[in-house]
Amino acid sequence: MTTQKLASSVQGLQSSAIRELLKHSKMPGVISLGGGIPNPELFDHEGLKMAADAVLSTHFGEAFQYGLSEGYPALREAIQQLSADRGIQCAADDVVITSGSQQSLDILARALINPGDTVIVERPTYLAALQVFSLAQANIESVGTDGEGMIVDELEARVANKPVKAVYIVPTFGNPGGVTLSEARRKKLVELSKRYDFVIIEDDPYSEINYTDEVFRPLMAHAKAIGNQDNIVYTSTFSKILSPGTRVGWVIVPEWLKRAVVNLKQTTDLHTSTLSQLMTYEYLKTGRLPGQIAMIRDAYRHKYQLFASELEAELGDVLSFHKPKGGMFLWAKMNNGLNTTRWLEKTLSNGVVYVPGEFFYCNDPDYATLRMSFVTATDDQLKEAVKRLKASL
Amino acid sequence: MTTQKLASSVQGLQSSAIRELLKHSKMPGVISLGGGIPNPELFDHEGLKMAADAVLSTHFGEAFQYGLSEGYPALREAIQQLSADRGIQCAADDVVITSGSQQSLDILARALINPGDTVIVERPTYLAALQVFSLAQANIESVGTDGEGMIVDELEARVANKPVKAVYIVPTFGNPGGVTLSEARRKKLVELSKRYDFVIIEDDPYSEINYTDEVFRPLMAHAKAIGNQDNIVYTSTFSKILSPGTRVGWVIVPEWLKRAVVNLKQTTDLHTSTLSQLMTYEYLKTGRLPGQIAMIRDAYRHKYQLFASELEAELGDVLSFHKPKGGMFLWAKMNNGLNTTRWLEKTLSNGVVYVPGEFFYCNDPDYATLRMSFVTATDDQLKEAVKRLKASL
Repeated sequence: MTTQKLASSVQGLQSSAIRELLKHSKMPGVISLGGGIPNPELFDHEGLKMAADAVLSTHFGEAFQYGLSEGYPALREAIQQLSADRGIQCAADDVVITSGSQQSLDILARALINPGDTVIVERPTYLAALQVFSLAQANIESVGTDGEGMIVDELEARVANKPVKAVYIVPTFGNPGGVTLSEARRKKLVELSKRYDFVIIEDDPYSEINYTDEVFRPLMAHAKAIGNQDNIVYTSTFSKILSPGTRVGWVIVPEWLKRAVVNLKQTTDLHTSTLSQLMTYEYLKTGRLPGQIAMIRDAYRHKYQLFASELEAELGDVLSFHKPKGGMFLWAKMNNGLNTTRWLEKTLSNGVVYVPGEFFYCNDPDYATLRMSFVTATDDQLKEAVKRLKASL
Repeated sequence: MTTQKLASSVQGLQSSAIRELLKHSKMPGVISLGGGIPNPELFDHEGLKMAADAVLSTHFGEAFQYGLSEGYPALREAIQQLSADRGIQCAADDVVITSGSQQSLDILARALINPGDTVIVERPTYLAALQVFSLAQANIESVGTDGEGMIVDELEARVANKPVKAVYIVPTFGNPGGVTLSEARRKKLVELSKRYDFVIIEDDPYSEINYTDEVFRPLMAHAKAIGNQDNIVYTSTFSKILSPGTRVGWVIVPEWLKRAVVNLKQTTDLHTSTLSQLMTYEYLKTGRLPGQIAMIRDAYRHKYQLFASELEAELGDVLSFHKPKGGMFLWAKMNNGLNTTRWLEKTLSNGVVYVPGEFFYCNDPDYATLRMSFVTATDDQLKEAVKRLKASL
């Protein structure tokens, strides 16, 4: 009756498929390959307890009081250091703390996008980024990907043709595609952004979860190297390497964007939970993060290898996939063109869920694709999941 | 150079005056009446420590993992009970947890306001609400207030004339005005909302900080009593009664608005810090909140009485004010029409800051007004602040 009162921008806003799937995934006996969540068994109980003790004993007043919209200064400094370790030179003042990457994207969309502005994303792309850009009433277009990530030549053809405001990309161990942008394409992408003057939104939640020794320089490092620092924004998070529940992420922004981002942060929620920020800061001070990351890498690599080899052995003739070099996701395509949204009903009745690929496209979805996460299931469950998928064919 | 890339909606977005003032207020020797922050000396150290212990020992996995966008179920149930105590009957399912009232307002604005829609606010009104509605590109208009809060007859003349989407109001111990909407006006306001079909956004951060035994029924209770539950949204927070730093607030929304609000919550930051939510839930379980509220009421009432009597004794002929019945703010007007924005420079040099009134108006500010908060200064500082104001005349 009164739904006509809703703002037009939210009328088409959908709940994410993952959200719906999480309901199924909690049914007894169902093995979930659907979530995008880290394995909670790997949370550093001891380290987080140490951090909590430090916060309560030495930061009590601060932890529960209002803070600055930019974020807790010492945490911004710690992130500056962490960024340097990733190859990004920036000032602590360039870092704005957010309540996770999702908020980073929402704030960036609000800072940059006028209704009708074009944002280019990968095919497939992170589903919740589509929600954010859709809420900002962007014209969302997509560029294909292959085993080396976004096909930058295809992007060039598009940007040379009509103006583009921003390109959104998860260049390293992407979600959902699992692919990583090659070094040559990274260089080309930042050159295009300089030549055609669009902003790159580099979303980097997964780069620490590297299964190899290969180093992937952030786009922001490449951009700065060619003097294109004004056209790149970098966002990352502690969600996949420490804790998603605390909701602590950050953006690194160029000077011209800083005031808008801080003002938006203030207008949207004043600041990120001081308690969460101090917990993160005190955790970093324990020096345990590198060990924690190494443990997560080992554990996820092991699960990936097990899962991939099971898939190849049991379903190698039915589906194909690019082998991820890191991250949390395996993106596959059914060789027979099976519609994975429809197939889900059958696999669910056999006790296994994944995310159908169609939700990761802004248009013209490939219905034969699917995203599987292998990080929360046990080894036995991963084997059993593959059997159940096979039995559902 | 590249600021032309900013979205048009953020180009006019200003940092709040409070933010700027907080810088001054930290200068050595300066007494701040400028902040809108609770007194951290009243934080319940022992209770929060108990809550933290409970979270770490019994909710460890949950506290650091992703959660539901609607909020932690047991906390939503606890808020349902707390709402019932305030006179609001609702289901736990009507409660959506947010990262503080500021986020509640932002989400509601995004859910309801199309660019150009009219939102009516009080004169004066909460400054950060003006930022939110301005970001939503609302047409913001205002209605005057007197000692009984918003002048609802003036509102009637306006809404009878042209359509209005929403009325934003802090009806109880308002910020900045310190006034409380009378019972008769509450009834009239919800009747108008029914007759002229606009949404009331009832912002209630302060009602527990009641200096009297008088009971002020929430607008939502009045609205439900006349079958107008579809035109009212209620938002509140733990910021003023427990801890602002954890950033935990909530909205109570009618059925037709629920999906949009939850989808927006998901799109903007997935969910509120699970750690903060569990801390709040475990704190509520200790049963200490009523005692904590009683202590805050006593302390703030004492400070208010001291400050008000000093003001009357020293500056009674220079400024006038309505006596607040609760809350954190005293709103005054200089009888000689002194411009308080300009005066601030002088009072600052004498070591006392307040917030000039002009920032709390959407247009045609009354430059002779000012907002003073008395809750963080010591008794001696309050007395000294009044002396310094007098010396600045």
